[in-house]
Amino acid sequence: MENNTIFGKIIRGEIPATKVYEDEKFLAFLDINPVKKGHTLLLPKEHYTWIHEVPKDLLAETFIKAQEIILAMRSGIPCDYVQVEVVGNEIPHFHVHLIPRMLSEEVLQTNRPHTPYKDLDEAVLFAEKIKNSL
Amino acid sequence: MENNTIFGKIIRGEIPATKVYEDEKFLAFLDINPVKKGHTLLLPKEHYTWIHEVPKDLLAETFIKAQEIILAMRSGIPCDYVQVEVVGNEIPHFHVHLIPRMLSEEVLQTNRPHTPYKDLDEAVLFAEKIKNSL
Repeated sequence: MENNTIFGKIIRGEIPATKVYEDEKFLAFLDINPVKKGHTLLLPKEHYTWIHEVPKDLLAETFIKAQEIILAMRSGIPCDYVQVEVVGNEIPHFHVHLIPRMLSEEVLQTNRPHTPYKDLDEAVLFAEKIKNSL
Repeated sequence: MENNTIFGKIIRGEIPATKVYEDEKFLAFLDINPVKKGHTLLLPKEHYTWIHEVPKDLLAETFIKAQEIILAMRSGIPCDYVQVEVVGNEIPHFHVHLIPRMLSEEVLQTNRPHTPYKDLDEAVLFAEKIKNSL
């Protein structure tokens, strides 16, 4: 099946990208709409839509490669640490966001809506349901 | 060095948590302030503050374990896909956020501030700096 996502087109060179890393298996390039300058996307060239579909070996390699790029970001650009995200619902080709961050900046997780449990029993119920599916 | 973070205390059983998974190496439990009900935190028990400090093997194992939990979340609770995040600046013990999501909900990445490049040259400069540090 041809990978008709924008990332498929970037992998095939049909759309340009500012590349940070490329080998046979992986490609990393700058996010065109960066949260912070240097915000990089890393993806395996093989097409999987969701993180839960990626074969274990490739998944492991992806995050080891992500770590290499994180270390390079810490050396090369203003960056104390890197925020890592797999969002999943934007471009249907598995990819990892690597967002350079400074300790001095405020990175709020809490500015997004939260959904509290009614009580501890409801939390336990959710945990049980996940546990029982493992 | 003793792990005095709240996660260290949870690992040692000094603070309760609603556990989803536990083995010798890993612990997963519900985030007490969930973005969505079922929001789970996965962490290796060994103490590392940052993702860039985690040994490769353990890093690989962590994301393979994360995938197992993602699959369980998709089976056990309302969840089409799982958003994965390593934020890094909240609790100084490496951990992975696993946030259950539905395709029908709007998950905006764009509600956070972005930092556009002045021009393509500036983007290329950032890419070069990361590339040269790899």
